[in-house]
Amino acid sequence: MSFQIPRGTQDIVPGTSELWQYIESKARDICRRYNYHELRTPIFEHTELFQRGVGDTTDIVQKEMYTFQDRGDRSLTLRPEGTASAVRAYVNNKMYGLPEQPVKLYYIGPMFRYERPQSGRMRQFVQFGIEALGSNDPSIDAEVIALAMGLYQELGLNKLKLYLNSLGDKESREAHRKALVQHFEPRIGEFCSDCQNRLEKNPLRILDCKKDRDHELMGTAPSIVDYLNEGSAHYFSKVKEALDHMDIEYVLDDRLVRGLDYYNHTAFEIMSDAEGFGAITTLSGGGRYNGLVEEMGGPSTPGIGFAMSIERLLMALEAEGIELPVEKSIDCYVVTMGDEAQAASNGLVQKLRRAGISTERDYLDKKMKGQFKAANRLQSKYVAILGDEEIERNEINVKNMITGEQEAVSLAEVSSYLIDKLKEEDGE
Amino acid sequence: MSFQIPRGTQDIVPGTSELWQYIESKARDICRRYNYHELRTPIFEHTELFQRGVGDTTDIVQKEMYTFQDRGDRSLTLRPEGTASAVRAYVNNKMYGLPEQPVKLYYIGPMFRYERPQSGRMRQFVQFGIEALGSNDPSIDAEVIALAMGLYQELGLNKLKLYLNSLGDKESREAHRKALVQHFEPRIGEFCSDCQNRLEKNPLRILDCKKDRDHELMGTAPSIVDYLNEGSAHYFSKVKEALDHMDIEYVLDDRLVRGLDYYNHTAFEIMSDAEGFGAITTLSGGGRYNGLVEEMGGPSTPGIGFAMSIERLLMALEAEGIELPVEKSIDCYVVTMGDEAQAASNGLVQKLRRAGISTERDYLDKKMKGQFKAANRLQSKYVAILGDEEIERNEINVKNMITGEQEAVSLAEVSSYLIDKLKEEDGE
Repeated sequence: MSFQIPRGTQDIVPGTSELWQYIESKARDICRRYNYHELRTPIFEHTELFQRGVGDTTDIVQKEMYTFQDRGDRSLTLRPEGTASAVRAYVNNKMYGLPEQPVKLYYIGPMFRYERPQSGRMRQFVQFGIEALGSNDPSIDAEVIALAMGLYQELGLNKLKLYLNSLGDKESREAHRKALVQHFEPRIGEFCSDCQNRLEKNPLRILDCKKDRDHELMGTAPSIVDYLNEGSAHYFSKVKEALDHMDIEYVLDDRLVRGLDYYNHTAFEIMSDAEGFGAITTLSGGGRYNGLVEEMGGPSTPGIGFAMSIERLLMALEAEGIELPVEKSIDCYVVTMGDEAQAASNGLVQKLRRAGISTERDYLDKKMKGQFKAANRLQSKYVAILGDEEIERNEINVKNMITGEQEAVSLAEVSSYLIDKLKEEDGE
Repeated sequence: MSFQIPRGTQDIVPGTSELWQYIESKARDICRRYNYHELRTPIFEHTELFQRGVGDTTDIVQKEMYTFQDRGDRSLTLRPEGTASAVRAYVNNKMYGLPEQPVKLYYIGPMFRYERPQSGRMRQFVQFGIEALGSNDPSIDAEVIALAMGLYQELGLNKLKLYLNSLGDKESREAHRKALVQHFEPRIGEFCSDCQNRLEKNPLRILDCKKDRDHELMGTAPSIVDYLNEGSAHYFSKVKEALDHMDIEYVLDDRLVRGLDYYNHTAFEIMSDAEGFGAITTLSGGGRYNGLVEEMGGPSTPGIGFAMSIERLLMALEAEGIELPVEKSIDCYVVTMGDEAQAASNGLVQKLRRAGISTERDYLDKKMKGQFKAANRLQSKYVAILGDEEIERNEINVKNMITGEQEAVSLAEVSSYLIDKLKEEDGE
């Protein structure tokens, strides 16, 4: 009997997992510099959280959630995205009462959507995202965008485009909404059933429809830009000014809507136009969601964030031919000859590892030649050769595998000898 | 409307998440030194995997799994432990064919068991575990134990006890099993219904029963030690010898059985007897599972591993009063005075962060005094004060918050100035 991995999921195996670790450590480091702190929420939440927090009219909630009853008959859902959980945690943990505001959070972890699996779209995928809750300063919109762009750039991506829009405040959205209804209503019968639903609930999302994207009414639909009231237009101009101060380029795109229901003011997407992709591809997106905390039972609190898929990021790196600098070698391989040496090597290997040296040895009773081959495959920087004779003399032969130099070192000093040698090489 | 977190799960919030990060980075580092590499498997698997891989007779499979149908009517289960998934991934990815053997894997991630939540037992909890597949060398049993003990010790735990047992090979287990059936069968009616089931399926696990632990037949039950055949006894003595070479102390415990069905030969548990716990508490456990890979559709392959709960580890640290050395301060806070400075600070803050300096600023339109207060709360090492005047002179005042020293630095040089200062302090 053999078992298969569930459809739309993947094993990340050694050789690839190092890339994920590298990206995550870079994400953590940029969060440290921008003073965002990690929040870890559960893998599942009560289903209503996402119905409310992501929005009932979204595809995610309507079609893509992993929802199930637990043994206590509660309806739980594997989280399809990170913002609803982060806001729930913000409210439950009363973070609005912390002395330091805004509260700046990040998360990295698996999300789940039951979609048709295809390249760059898995049923379990990993998102890195940040949320800044409690500030209405346009500078923080720019900060959020800067962090997203910064991570991509620091990983080496060049073919990036930042698209920017404002969806305005409630009043502006309402005016725009009315104009959209007026625009689409007379001919809504020509649109898909999803769009017909959206007309009443959230006509803005009609602009995001993939099925009806070529309908002639799409091109002539009223633009949000023309409906921004003075406050919203001023806010948007301040966001752009802050981005200018940061030397971050952007393209204005008044069709940029985002898939979730609660966005307002700033909305953005980062795309890759690397040739490898064929077409332009969204790497991440985010925006402001000033009503969401209140909607979830907290005090009225502004918020903004973004989320990026690590799978897409890896594809973008591949499309641009960027190789991440992950360590592939080990420091030392202990080769043994003879029974006594084999037993004693347990102590030696343990000592080296405890001293900080990455060390390997043979566990298959290989002959010396086979052990050297393994050391080479592992790209070991040093080989320490321990025989029964050496044990008697209380010393060991250490060979530098690059220069071929070999030295006899006393067993008591071999860790400090190797640490010094490895430091020297690092310094070069 | 407000939303609650699902029962038995927790939010790990800033202030605590840093402890998790620290432990994980230590776990990753010890794996690097012992040459274990990360494997990431999906959060859910086909339900049969755990029925087979964990064992039908275990409490986990019988009572505690989060099992549900997906939209394609497949039965999926949130993973209750890591070994079954790791072995599935080993088989699916044909890791038995890799040139480097044994294959040494580690994982860190959430696991799920529907249990009654109590202190140190959550429905979602995090396990760190390793698996070494493909070697029958007693030295690797010792290596696996050494890594587990090493992580605890390097984090500062002292009150540790390692309990060790051998369950023997198939022949030894069979002989012991027969003796157990003979021992319990005449009076099995006095035992709980779970034990009555276990008598046929896996009588060894009767010894592990919490309900019947005080029954008089428990104390007189035949010990595995008396049923180990020569090969098994020799193997066990070699494991002990390797531990001796590593200076790792252990206590022999012939009642140590482990909760999973597939263990054989070496079994171990690490306990804490720190006073804070009240009673002695299991921190982690592991053992050898030589039949499991074959059972899961792979070639006959020996294996050994352990798993530890991070929640328990944190409790042990608390019980011993150990504080992990996590960074709580930031490098620089940019204080602004005046409108022009406030706008320009976006560029300055961005520049410092891109240069590697953790930097914060105000996003709530605070007065200068409030900004300094925030800098103090964040334990900022430096404050950079930018006013409209300074912008005109193209410079900025940088204040060391510990010494109180203040210097005017040109705006173009402020990042390199701070980097030098921070390095100096690190060096002290």
